[in-house]
Amino acid sequence: MVHCMVKLVFIYSTCLVLVQRVEAADPDPLVDFSANATTPVFRNIFANGDVTTGSGGVRAALDIGKFPALTSEGLTVVQFKMVPCGENVPHTHPRATELLSLISGGPLQAGFVDTKGETHINILYPGDLIVFPRGLLHFEINVGTEIAFYISALNSQNPGTLDAAGAVLQLPERAAAIALNIDIAAVRALKSQRPYNEPPTLEAAKPGVCVPGQLITTTV
Amino acid sequence: MVHCMVKLVFIYSTCLVLVQRVEAADPDPLVDFSANATTPVFRNIFANGDVTTGSGGVRAALDIGKFPALTSEGLTVVQFKMVPCGENVPHTHPRATELLSLISGGPLQAGFVDTKGETHINILYPGDLIVFPRGLLHFEINVGTEIAFYISALNSQNPGTLDAAGAVLQLPERAAAIALNIDIAAVRALKSQRPYNEPPTLEAAKPGVCVPGQLITTTV
Amino acid sequence: MVHCMVKLVFIYSTCLVLVQRVEAADPDPLVDFSANATTPVFRNIFANGDVTTGSGGVRAALDIGKFPALTSEGLTVVQFKMVPCGENVPHTHPRATELLSLISGGPLQAGFVDTKGETHINILYPGDLIVFPRGLLHFEINVGTEIAFYISALNSQNPGTLDAAGAVLQLPERAAAIALNIDIAAVRALKSQRPYNEPPTLEAAKPGVCVPGQLITTTV
Amino acid sequence: MVHCMVKLVFIYSTCLVLVQRVEAADPDPLVDFSANATTPVFRNIFANGDVTTGSGGVRAALDIGKFPALTSEGLTVVQFKMVPCGENVPHTHPRATELLSLISGGPLQAGFVDTKGETHINILYPGDLIVFPRGLLHFEINVGTEIAFYISALNSQNPGTLDAAGAVLQLPERAAAIALNIDIAAVRALKSQRPYNEPPTLEAAKPGVCVPGQLITTTV
Amino acid sequence: MVHCMVKLVFIYSTCLVLVQRVEAADPDPLVDFSANATTPVFRNIFANGDVTTGSGGVRAALDIGKFPALTSEGLTVVQFKMVPCGENVPHTHPRATELLSLISGGPLQAGFVDTKGETHINILYPGDLIVFPRGLLHFEINVGTEIAFYISALNSQNPGTLDAAGAVLQLPERAAAIALNIDIAAVRALKSQRPYNEPPTLEAAKPGVCVPGQLITTTV
Amino acid sequence: MVHCMVKLVFIYSTCLVLVQRVEAADPDPLVDFSANATTPVFRNIFANGDVTTGSGGVRAALDIGKFPALTSEGLTVVQFKMVPCGENVPHTHPRATELLSLISGGPLQAGFVDTKGETHINILYPGDLIVFPRGLLHFEINVGTEIAFYISALNSQNPGTLDAAGAVLQLPERAAAIALNIDIAAVRALKSQRPYNEPPTLEAAKPGVCVPGQLITTTV
Repeated sequence: MVHCMVKLVFIYSTCLVLVQRVEAADPDPLVDFSANATTPVFRNIFANGDVTTGSGGVRAALDIGKFPALTSEGLTVVQFKMVPCGENVPHTHPRATELLSLISGGPLQAGFVDTKGETHINILYPGDLIVFPRGLLHFEINVGTEIAFYISALNSQNPGTLDAAGAVLQLPERAAAIALNIDIAAVRALKSQRPYNEPPTLEAAKPGVCVPGQLITTTV
Repeated sequence: MVHCMVKLVFIYSTCLVLVQRVEAADPDPLVDFSANATTPVFRNIFANGDVTTGSGGVRAALDIGKFPALTSEGLTVVQFKMVPCGENVPHTHPRATELLSLISGGPLQAGFVDTKGETHINILYPGDLIVFPRGLLHFEINVGTEIAFYISALNSQNPGTLDAAGAVLQLPERAAAIALNIDIAAVRALKSQRPYNEPPTLEAAKPGVCVPGQLITTTV
Repeated sequence: MVHCMVKLVFIYSTCLVLVQRVEAADPDPLVDFSANATTPVFRNIFANGDVTTGSGGVRAALDIGKFPALTSEGLTVVQFKMVPCGENVPHTHPRATELLSLISGGPLQAGFVDTKGETHINILYPGDLIVFPRGLLHFEINVGTEIAFYISALNSQNPGTLDAAGAVLQLPERAAAIALNIDIAAVRALKSQRPYNEPPTLEAAKPGVCVPGQLITTTV
Repeated sequence: MVHCMVKLVFIYSTCLVLVQRVEAADPDPLVDFSANATTPVFRNIFANGDVTTGSGGVRAALDIGKFPALTSEGLTVVQFKMVPCGENVPHTHPRATELLSLISGGPLQAGFVDTKGETHINILYPGDLIVFPRGLLHFEINVGTEIAFYISALNSQNPGTLDAAGAVLQLPERAAAIALNIDIAAVRALKSQRPYNEPPTLEAAKPGVCVPGQLITTTV
Repeated sequence: MVHCMVKLVFIYSTCLVLVQRVEAADPDPLVDFSANATTPVFRNIFANGDVTTGSGGVRAALDIGKFPALTSEGLTVVQFKMVPCGENVPHTHPRATELLSLISGGPLQAGFVDTKGETHINILYPGDLIVFPRGLLHFEINVGTEIAFYISALNSQNPGTLDAAGAVLQLPERAAAIALNIDIAAVRALKSQRPYNEPPTLEAAKPGVCVPGQLITTTV
Repeated sequence: MVHCMVKLVFIYSTCLVLVQRVEAADPDPLVDFSANATTPVFRNIFANGDVTTGSGGVRAALDIGKFPALTSEGLTVVQFKMVPCGENVPHTHPRATELLSLISGGPLQAGFVDTKGETHINILYPGDLIVFPRGLLHFEINVGTEIAFYISALNSQNPGTLDAAGAVLQLPERAAAIALNIDIAAVRALKSQRPYNEPPTLEAAKPGVCVPGQLITTTV
């Protein structure tokens, strides 16, 4: 028992030392790969990833918990299959820039708003790519008639995703009311039909908002 | 001679482009201070800074164009004077974490939404500080009866500010409609009364949304 | 006037040098996006990218010169279409980790050698991903019977690609001879049939080295 | 044995916390905020911070041990209340640039010496800011007649403070003697009246060195 | 008690894993020096370092396990004593740039291949330095008649060393065959006489490949 | 033509400013090597480097202006030849950690003061190394009877050197007086015999302060 306690003290002080050494983050790796990575391969991302299915389609992300080989490698990938008129609702990645490749289907209407409030909206066809600079608000809508399959690369092992409209409506009602310049009742009405989804899901348009294959334009 | 001038214009615009591109990294400095910094001092930020006045108060930021000594130093400061019931509307900083010190007045209701959709809301009194992690949606409201004077430090020379609600309403109407799960007409109604302000201004609440000094709580 | 032109040439070459030197850091962006980015979209990567066609297939990379929106964003994407028994010959990326997604076809035999000399080889099917940690030697071979289409994300705007075997054979013969523990004549024999290709191309196997769809294993 | 197991569970959960905290370094964050941050708020910095009181005034710093929400956020804040003729003695921050805002009182004489040995000295009035680039030797003196209240932002969670004169006098006497080009006895005399204070305190001037409100100039 | 010890072993190995993961970033330090550094001094690197002796000479590296003061400091040093006609075989450092100083002896033929396949080869005399940019393939040969003593600085605490020719021959035979454009039998012949050495050793030339002091040129 | 020349001068000075500002980040390279590097080799550092000779010996540094191949490579080297009783006076490097290898001669007394005011002093013999963590105050004295030859690696292309005692004495007299807790006259006496040297030189001890080969100890 005494021996056990001695070891406990030793272990515990090792842990304390670790608290000090916590020098780890997203930039340059210090090792070939993470010591607790058993394999560099992740199998079948739509079956084994962080898969979220919404009315607008399916999103499959890598998860560092399930794929420790990503540790300290500084990038990740998310794959999407989006139905016509589905949307990956406007969001930001607090810790990464995103580079999206459309593989097939669509076309996608995709774009972002910069910190000047200017929009940069485009229509993407298979073979096209679009970049969403770090932290800027962006979205994608399948404005075509076929399922859009696309892959996004992000330059952090944990980019984070902040659903912007959902987050505003998560705030105290007073804060959201001033933000939208509306009254409290209007905030409550918006909030009642718009939960914050985490992980984020792809959403379908309400009836009347979008007709598959129509209005393939950057401006509407 | 004309040819020479044409080339000069071309060269000069190439140089201007370079000035923009040169700013493209925030990390470790390589020199003591920027070669085009004539002084390390910035005088009277509320007179000489980037000052924006809204119905909710005044925001004074440093601007690297006016204060080149900030170049490659990796931080900046913004100072605020906010009237009761004024709000610094919900926003994100794509490139910085913020650490806010309340100097006098208020109290402030302040907080953020994380990428799980959880809110972290607090009431701040003079002497208190709050941290808004990089890229997360945050806001401040003066819920007291006295002008709130506070100072925010940000760890980038150009953190950027993205007005989240304003940005969602800058999107194509279809994209905003799906984002808020409302129809197009409702998007237009919201958009009509909510411009995107750049630089961002402090906003006052509409009548009925906020009474100075009442409801000093984290939850409303 | 002549003097003016002389100076112009001098100035202009100074500026060009600057353009090269400006790219000298991959980390945090300081602006929303590059000032000389006219669009965040890159169209049809297999037509407009840096496309290299070898006996083993086609490789299409983004090029920051053609797509300035990548400037200081810290990531890029390369897309591949590889014939059965084609190989992306063993190489390293001096400035990036790679995360590869197999979209269709194959399967691919892919893997890397770490700095201990241990190999990590796998067979990938569509939907699988593999990570190649920064700077480690890796390769991919299409060991199936169908064209393999895959996309690699890399966390630098200019990862660089070093063809390892080609580079060893670029060295002075004496250096390569000691490296391979062979004599000078043997180095010359190897060198005669193996040029360094830049940009790198996908290569087909010599007759007898690979039979499409046979020996789908990690070990041969 | 039960006691041992209880401790084991405690140790093990400490280790799990470490797994979360391991992502902590001063550059890019990898998570929204530190797993062991219970609140983003720090209350009343002059009561609860790292408060050090010297003859020259009071310095209140955040401490990451008391405020784990700062972990991996890459910045901190220190607040000062300095009496007339008090000095924050010349020091360097090995790991941060500092941006100081004078709130009230003073004026402050403040400045730094760069690596060329050139001094950059200024007089600050309320509303003014000054930047001290990373690692350069700097100081502040209240040269006015009222208590100076100022706030410094630093772009590291743990900037470190090295009291330069105190550190030279901590060296072996021979080393300090060559450094100052004096003899051993003179080193001992200096050392006898100048301890190294950690954490650093604000110091008052000896009689005759400074008269409050007199000699408000950058040069004396 | 046995159960307790089993758990202790488990906990302790968890901690060891943490020690590995903690090392996962090379950038700015967060503390003065590592908490588990008992001394900033490393004694007699050719006796106590990671010493590897090959037919071409001796290589002595620091090892962070033996010298924890290097933790999170972002650099290391390797020292070499190389016999005439010895070679530090062509290799890359996945995580560092190298700056080599020749102290005495030699001369050294040294150089690198860049990602365009161009070689940069030089002859170094005592007092000369050469830089090998991060990740590029480089080598050194003692082309003189005296033992060459040289010191290399690298800007990572764990640069890693990838023996390029050895690594290509570690791959599946099919992959190496396509890489060298040879058949399987030829791969086996090369592989039979060329093991991957880890840690890497300095190698002597085969008879006939190199004569000490002859052919002191950059090109052979 | 005059107008043209005026513009030329303006443009050219803009370009020069850019050259300075372009150097503003030490981290990951984006290219193989700098576009204006004509060679990766620097010849004979004691003849061609930044060589400074003081009463205590010779210091030879690389200079990025003379050796552009260092650009954005993130490290440099300084070499020293120090006479017995010479000192590299106490200094800090604002932007780098240093790793010193003693090649021959000495022994050296070397060490640093950390931000707690604790000293870490050691005696180094040939083959020993010592690390000086970034920004901490450090020094070396040759306490033996033979010229000490040593090489320091630093992990920045421009580490900067701040002569700590010299810098304190560069401050306004009032600031230095409070810093040392002495009166103005005493500051003037110290200042009169201690100039700030840039670039820093190695200094010899005054008579009586140091006897070559005596008192080889860490503590005096």
